[in-house]
Amino acid sequence: MQIIDGKALANQIKEELKLEVEHWVENGGKRPHLAAVLVGDDPASQAYVRNKVKSCEQVGFQSTLLKYEADMAEDDLLDIVKGLNENPEIDGYIVQLPLPKHIDENKILLAIDYRKDVDGFHPVNFGRMAQGLDSYLPATPMGILTMLDRYNIETSGKDVVVLGRSNIVGTPISILLSRKAKVGNATVTLTHSRTSDLEGHLKRADIIVAAIGIPLFVKKEMVKQGAVIIDVGINRVTSPDTKSGYKLVGDVDYDHVAPNCSHITPVPGGVGPMTVVSLLQNTMKAAKETIYNKP
Amino acid sequence: MQIIDGKALANQIKEELKLEVEHWVENGGKRPHLAAVLVGDDPASQAYVRNKVKSCEQVGFQSTLLKYEADMAEDDLLDIVKGLNENPEIDGYIVQLPLPKHIDENKILLAIDYRKDVDGFHPVNFGRMAQGLDSYLPATPMGILTMLDRYNIETSGKDVVVLGRSNIVGTPISILLSRKAKVGNATVTLTHSRTSDLEGHLKRADIIVAAIGIPLFVKKEMVKQGAVIIDVGINRVTSPDTKSGYKLVGDVDYDHVAPNCSHITPVPGGVGPMTVVSLLQNTMKAAKETIYNKP
Repeated sequence: MQIIDGKALANQIKEELKLEVEHWVENGGKRPHLAAVLVGDDPASQAYVRNKVKSCEQVGFQSTLLKYEADMAEDDLLDIVKGLNENPEIDGYIVQLPLPKHIDENKILLAIDYRKDVDGFHPVNFGRMAQGLDSYLPATPMGILTMLDRYNIETSGKDVVVLGRSNIVGTPISILLSRKAKVGNATVTLTHSRTSDLEGHLKRADIIVAAIGIPLFVKKEMVKQGAVIIDVGINRVTSPDTKSGYKLVGDVDYDHVAPNCSHITPVPGGVGPMTVVSLLQNTMKAAKETIYNKP
Repeated sequence: MQIIDGKALANQIKEELKLEVEHWVENGGKRPHLAAVLVGDDPASQAYVRNKVKSCEQVGFQSTLLKYEADMAEDDLLDIVKGLNENPEIDGYIVQLPLPKHIDENKILLAIDYRKDVDGFHPVNFGRMAQGLDSYLPATPMGILTMLDRYNIETSGKDVVVLGRSNIVGTPISILLSRKAKVGNATVTLTHSRTSDLEGHLKRADIIVAAIGIPLFVKKEMVKQGAVIIDVGINRVTSPDTKSGYKLVGDVDYDHVAPNCSHITPVPGGVGPMTVVSLLQNTMKAAKETIYNKP
């Protein structure tokens, strides 16, 4: 059994990116510049955005954090987005979700210029992805592809079962792993709350991607000997073993499932760190105009 | 066993559309106007476009057919597309595929204003579909949803196996049947040329959507008793029984498979007629601005 060390891999890719940035800037390229928009004071969102800004520093990107009060008007946020679209200094930007309830998230996401949409949430990027065209991929599925690639895990012809059909993980990873691509060509089944025989599907899977947000949902007896497990869940559960009184666990019952796997991602330290790295990689592509010319 | 009569259903929906158009125009609405662009003289493409124009007449739409020589320049076609985007008389339009080899199909499709893209091929429409937002759905998958709906075939919780991952049928129907929707909530497996145990997947399917373009590929022994079969294939094979010396068959070995099914679509007269009807329905929505405001 091999643990897929997302943290170590993320650090390695950051080192590679740092060299790429240096080389790019030395040769007259503009230093990549990511902006992040944060509305309100949700602690988790604050932590995520801080981590993104810190990661930018680590690889030599410029970053700008724009913070606004939770009660800001939707129109004002739309103006901010418009300004970022038009600002030639900004290569790519993200609007941290969730937004306060009085703001229509879809309206905001649709207003982002797809050429700066390094989160890959705009329909143009999502549609191009599904059609097999080059695009900014959503960060978490992109991180999963990178892990499978760097660990030389064969996906072609394999049976993949994806648990959960969210727009940010389950649906896009099911599309990506089905595509005709180096990491792809798998036979993917997308399962969800309405699936009749979930256990039957899991048991036949060569690769399981768990993204339903239910702590320790996937048990040992649901997993085939030698399967590959990608655990996207990050669930906070109470624990008597930690000072804080809680700990983070995945959607997979790691302790019991791991011994029978060929590869498994831990939580924390698996998929999580790869998500931020994907965002950096997209921003690098934006600066280099690898996919689109600048607006 | 019930035959899903696509031809009869298409005619019925055309009658409904005709009434809808009359009502809309009587109440001051603009008569829906579909344009079709045909480049070159491929006989199949000519037949398809003729059929679309004829169907427009049947339901009371206005239609415009724009025909160009096979050697037209890509830039000239881009100008035509631009003109259609800007022409307020045209509610929606299609560019018949395939285009001559010297023209970049993707470049043309991306140039179509997504608000007039009644074929649902533009990434904005494809992405919105995959994200569960309202959009113009690609015609063939949309026709399949309509058939399942009108025949009251339950999809929620069912195991669907899709054969073939093309951008116009296999991939979008797999996305659509997975979505949280009235006709949806199925557990979908998308299979293709790299799938290891295709027969194993087919045998467990409650619903099979065959779209690989191999005549009579799906045999009796690959299908579970009581399954629903949607046959998208239209293959021309030689036949001693017809005057022309050929006949059309699907991807399913109909004669042997049908007796064991609960429902099955024939070829011809199944999915085919529904495709044109979907295009008409999208055009009606364009005229009414149901999904998008006009450009």
